[in-house]
Amino acid sequence: MIQLGSLDRKRAHALLEEARLDGMVLIQPESVTYATGAKPGSAAGWRRAGAVFVIVPANANVPMTAIVGDFYAEEFRAASGIEDIVTFPVWVDLIDIAPYENGTLVERLSLARPAKSARARPANYDADLTFGLLADVLRRRGLASARLGTEYAFLPFADAGRFSSACPDVRWSDASQLVSRLRMIKSQQEIALLRIAAQSAEAGVAAAISNLEPGRTGEQLFSSFHAASSRRAVELGYDGPIYPVGTVTVGPKATGWGRPAQKGDIIRLDVGCTVQGYTSDSARTAVMGQPSEDQRAVYNSLHKAFHRGLGLLRPGIPLRAVHAAAMRSMHDDGFTMYCRGHFGHGVGASVFVEEWPFISADEHMEIEAGMVLAYELPWYIRGLGAFMLEDQFIIAAETAEPCWSLSRNLVVCEC
Amino acid sequence: MIQLGSLDRKRAHALLEEARLDGMVLIQPESVTYATGAKPGSAAGWRRAGAVFVIVPANANVPMTAIVGDFYAEEFRAASGIEDIVTFPVWVDLIDIAPYENGTLVERLSLARPAKSARARPANYDADLTFGLLADVLRRRGLASARLGTEYAFLPFADAGRFSSACPDVRWSDASQLVSRLRMIKSQQEIALLRIAAQSAEAGVAAAISNLEPGRTGEQLFSSFHAASSRRAVELGYDGPIYPVGTVTVGPKATGWGRPAQKGDIIRLDVGCTVQGYTSDSARTAVMGQPSEDQRAVYNSLHKAFHRGLGLLRPGIPLRAVHAAAMRSMHDDGFTMYCRGHFGHGVGASVFVEEWPFISADEHMEIEAGMVLAYELPWYIRGLGAFMLEDQFIIAAETAEPCWSLSRNLVVCEC
Repeated sequence: MIQLGSLDRKRAHALLEEARLDGMVLIQPESVTYATGAKPGSAAGWRRAGAVFVIVPANANVPMTAIVGDFYAEEFRAASGIEDIVTFPVWVDLIDIAPYENGTLVERLSLARPAKSARARPANYDADLTFGLLADVLRRRGLASARLGTEYAFLPFADAGRFSSACPDVRWSDASQLVSRLRMIKSQQEIALLRIAAQSAEAGVAAAISNLEPGRTGEQLFSSFHAASSRRAVELGYDGPIYPVGTVTVGPKATGWGRPAQKGDIIRLDVGCTVQGYTSDSARTAVMGQPSEDQRAVYNSLHKAFHRGLGLLRPGIPLRAVHAAAMRSMHDDGFTMYCRGHFGHGVGASVFVEEWPFISADEHMEIEAGMVLAYELPWYIRGLGAFMLEDQFIIAAETAEPCWSLSRNLVVCEC
Repeated sequence: MIQLGSLDRKRAHALLEEARLDGMVLIQPESVTYATGAKPGSAAGWRRAGAVFVIVPANANVPMTAIVGDFYAEEFRAASGIEDIVTFPVWVDLIDIAPYENGTLVERLSLARPAKSARARPANYDADLTFGLLADVLRRRGLASARLGTEYAFLPFADAGRFSSACPDVRWSDASQLVSRLRMIKSQQEIALLRIAAQSAEAGVAAAISNLEPGRTGEQLFSSFHAASSRRAVELGYDGPIYPVGTVTVGPKATGWGRPAQKGDIIRLDVGCTVQGYTSDSARTAVMGQPSEDQRAVYNSLHKAFHRGLGLLRPGIPLRAVHAAAMRSMHDDGFTMYCRGHFGHGVGASVFVEEWPFISADEHMEIEAGMVLAYELPWYIRGLGAFMLEDQFIIAAETAEPCWSLSRNLVVCEC
């Protein structure tokens, strides 16, 4: 396992200043883990507001505060390094008799929890109470009438009124985009995880390709991918669990898992691995036997367009320029009917494998060092096959380092 | 794979009538899958509103309508049986040249998509457009000024305004609890999945127990669990993937994975399997060698309390009565400091393994046939161990059928 770092408070400060905010309150489970390196506890499993809060003052010298369920507090403190942790009771009870060596079991249990400190626990957690704790923390931090952002793209409407009723003097606004911008730049630990994920997946794809033969199903190839990527993660020295994601599409239907492989079938291997929540995303395309002229033409154009865009995948270039270059290349090759909303996206540990920003026609955001981007040229042509070429790139000061070294050519399988 | 059924429109009608609603609009990915048996498509991966809608009129004779991304429409129609499907463009393009046998590749691609029908695709999806489609459907169904519910417990605050601006005459209200009440009663297909999940997990727990010996870690025992539960699913004739969930806690720390097993350690195996989204939840407790007197006393009391409550786990009994009976049993045994927010919960395919209703002190809901409940008596005692006894029950007209036949006694491992 890799210890995730805590939030880059300097960047958070700059972005909060720019948004004229005095701080932000993180509530989405993925954001909490991102900012603290700690899991928010199972109370956050229902994805409601009030199960966890991380208060991030704009002033980087003021420590962050976390409000978490009591059962998770110890683990949260250890993983996050956050000292200012406020707890509330969840449904799970933990009683600690380790300090009491003498007496009967009931005596020691009673010492651990004297009758006067015993209280009933809620069925889940008490959001009235947790929002009250949020108000307390904001008062203590001098933020009771501050301009604060929280995550409106996550905040359930059923819970939204609690922010203004618990903290009536706070001027609340949406910090979702600000959080996305923070997450866009990866720390060294995040990059390490995305590298392990991608490298494991690369070994998995190589194994699946070597397993290609007539009759193989997409599901079977995915199983080979899974097994080999798990082995590779161990070889890379990663000792935690990894989870495979993605699809292997076989044949002319061009969607889903397709059919058992036959001579002439195109096979799209669009896969990744999830490592501590961080998911890689890359793809290769194979063909059973020699490709038809049409299959060759489509792949060649995607391959050319991929490299046209790749020439622009570097700091300072707006993402839409990459989209435009790849699209123009396809159209210039005569495929004027080709369309696609994005040619890739950020990767990380968001709620979905594709995270903002997108390599899309209207994305003005410039590429920056520290981004990790999946860049892809797919085409789903029913009657011909599902084609895809995708690599994951770590953007540095002047380079876009690919996470895979596997050839980008169409994989031709003897059969 | 088991084909999930479509919504019980008669029950939906009754609950909507009771709530004085003319219909509801489902937006949470899990609710969409529940109601249709179909996946909502990857556009729903960001968990925003507007990526998918299922319109359920209260009048059970009016068909349901689904609004889904065009790339997913075919699969959605096949899985759901819903005929009234409205689509919108997502970022992924699929072009179908199968009907065109003659001409060059570009000619056939141009026939599949004539220049005038070609259009740019959005980076993700266009929520202005999809909410507009929702308004169209509601008009067409005569619901443009109806009383409709949607899922406020899911609906992101950032998207909430779209409902009233797109459909200004609809009187919107929260249907989250109504959806929970619908989901509370399982169909035969849902019960079949929860049975496969539980039976696979039971074999996994038996295997992990047979693997118990000094030095074993919780992670290793979980791996044995995983492997054996996967094998059992295949034996049961289930051909899809199953995912293991849960924790094996070893030793006196009583939380997390704990330490490598030593003589005297208590081992809590609290696990389940996820099958097509449906997750089982059950637990057993083992001890390395003979238990201490204290360990024996705690387990005996939990075991007794479990069966006290179990006597009430049948239709017509309020859930709080089960909670009260189990709690009273613990307190009567002298463990007056014992507390716990709930002694179990519904299981299904919700966003979290624990779904409403809860076996809690304030839950007035009566047990009903068709519920599937995980019923549990846990106690986390640091210094002694994590103890847990949990079974999953299928509630029928007069019975609570346990999904496991594994003994509920403390498992004593020779060592």
